[in-house]
Amino acid sequence: MGRVTQRVPSTRVEVVDGTVRETRRPDTLAVEEPLEIRVGGQTITVTMRTPGDDFDLTLGNLLTEAVVTKPTDVAQLMHCLDEDESGSPTYNVVDVTLTPGVVPDLDRTARSGYQSSACGVCGKTSVDAITATSPYAVADDSVRLSPEVVVGLPGRLREQQKVFDKTGGLHAAGIFTADGEPLVVREDVGRHNAVDKVIGWAGREGLLPLSGHVLVVSGRASFELVQKAVMAGIPALVAVSAPSSLAVELARTSGLTLVGFTRDPRMTVYAGGQRLGLASHTGQ
Amino acid sequence: MGRVTQRVPSTRVEVVDGTVRETRRPDTLAVEEPLEIRVGGQTITVTMRTPGDDFDLTLGNLLTEAVVTKPTDVAQLMHCLDEDESGSPTYNVVDVTLTPGVVPDLDRTARSGYQSSACGVCGKTSVDAITATSPYAVADDSVRLSPEVVVGLPGRLREQQKVFDKTGGLHAAGIFTADGEPLVVREDVGRHNAVDKVIGWAGREGLLPLSGHVLVVSGRASFELVQKAVMAGIPALVAVSAPSSLAVELARTSGLTLVGFTRDPRMTVYAGGQRLGLASHTGQ
Repeated sequence: MGRVTQRVPSTRVEVVDGTVRETRRPDTLAVEEPLEIRVGGQTITVTMRTPGDDFDLTLGNLLTEAVVTKPTDVAQLMHCLDEDESGSPTYNVVDVTLTPGVVPDLDRTARSGYQSSACGVCGKTSVDAITATSPYAVADDSVRLSPEVVVGLPGRLREQQKVFDKTGGLHAAGIFTADGEPLVVREDVGRHNAVDKVIGWAGREGLLPLSGHVLVVSGRASFELVQKAVMAGIPALVAVSAPSSLAVELARTSGLTLVGFTRDPRMTVYAGGQRLGLASHTGQ
Repeated sequence: MGRVTQRVPSTRVEVVDGTVRETRRPDTLAVEEPLEIRVGGQTITVTMRTPGDDFDLTLGNLLTEAVVTKPTDVAQLMHCLDEDESGSPTYNVVDVTLTPGVVPDLDRTARSGYQSSACGVCGKTSVDAITATSPYAVADDSVRLSPEVVVGLPGRLREQQKVFDKTGGLHAAGIFTADGEPLVVREDVGRHNAVDKVIGWAGREGLLPLSGHVLVVSGRASFELVQKAVMAGIPALVAVSAPSSLAVELARTSGLTLVGFTRDPRMTVYAGGQRLGLASHTGQ
């Protein structure tokens, strides 16, 4: 269960002075498979993910998409005993049983956002229309982060990326302490999934809200990743690459520290610089 | 309408020998805003996209997600005249009117896949369960691609990327002729959106199916990008980075040429190498 990489035949080609050199060799790829999440028998989303940590992915998805509000809202997670045409189990469906009395918010669905036109973005400001309400406050300013530690976080994330080394094809997300120690690092073909996996892990371990912690991601910082951080009560998001405009906007309105282009010894701070002790960010 | 970049205040930080140097300066970011697509008044998806080419994005999304089967199924595309709290138009909703008699396939939705449990992945092989049926054949082997041209395509795509240079935050997709000439290149914070924009453009221009053409993407090749190529009848997908396992599987079953890690003068060919004249791919 949960093959994370797969070897496939491939041909390496090099074109030198108009001559084509072919080398036939197996290549190791990141596995991508659909995961269907069902709540009370109803399909709420299908996400393309790398198998493994499916229960963490499911719990993290339900929490950060506001389908449920706390880990104890979920009573049971089970792989559906589905089989493919050859009779092998696929492990591509997770059945979620909620705690009696919990009503899921099914207006929101992962990734694409919404199924109900009642939640339409028409006539609302973008951020208002698509921002879920977090059960946790991230505006806690008591956590202090050292710029020296923060610029080194992508390097520490990279050290923990086992599969990327083989495939070059996986995004990573990690939760780190303010001192730069990794609590958990997960990889996935989908960057949202990597974040859901680490937040779901934290939910299962009873660590939510993740006050005083930092979420580190291997790629860009989009609106949805900032939203997932906010939903888990994480006060800081550190990305290796660029943020989007809406990621910065949501970080500012939510009180999240947002750092992009983080490449030791440099980084760019877009919001919440007071947690990093930056003189120019006092009061921002 | 359609701000593609936005300037925001930021602080560049450099940590040298334990000393923090701060430089306050504006930074140019890629704009990310939600786009809600409505068909006959019903919301079918909300995608986080970079504004601009919204009608191409919408048409490309409907075609590649199999909501409709051909460009003429769509009679009209209009921006909903919505306003935000300040009374400014947001242009974040596109209303689609279908040609009379056309019944949309709403079981499939963009990105997250499916809303109906009838389309569940349980008990089916992954690829069968999530593959939409293309109205076009890509298995046409008559197109021949020169390896020398193909290794140079990411460079040609990059030349056309205007916004990336400013922001470092955008994915690109382009449709090229077999001779390496660009027909259209689009950028977006979402890589699926960049592909939908170029395919929607081709649909509006009456160029579908895109037989004899190559789709080039700036990032990785996922299952969904291969599927979008197949849905547009494109026989070859060239990616700068790694493909996933399922991308290779779908490329093989669909007869698509799939190239990854394309960095002049090298590339790795995973499927359909006969179009590149590779000796090792005859019959694959």
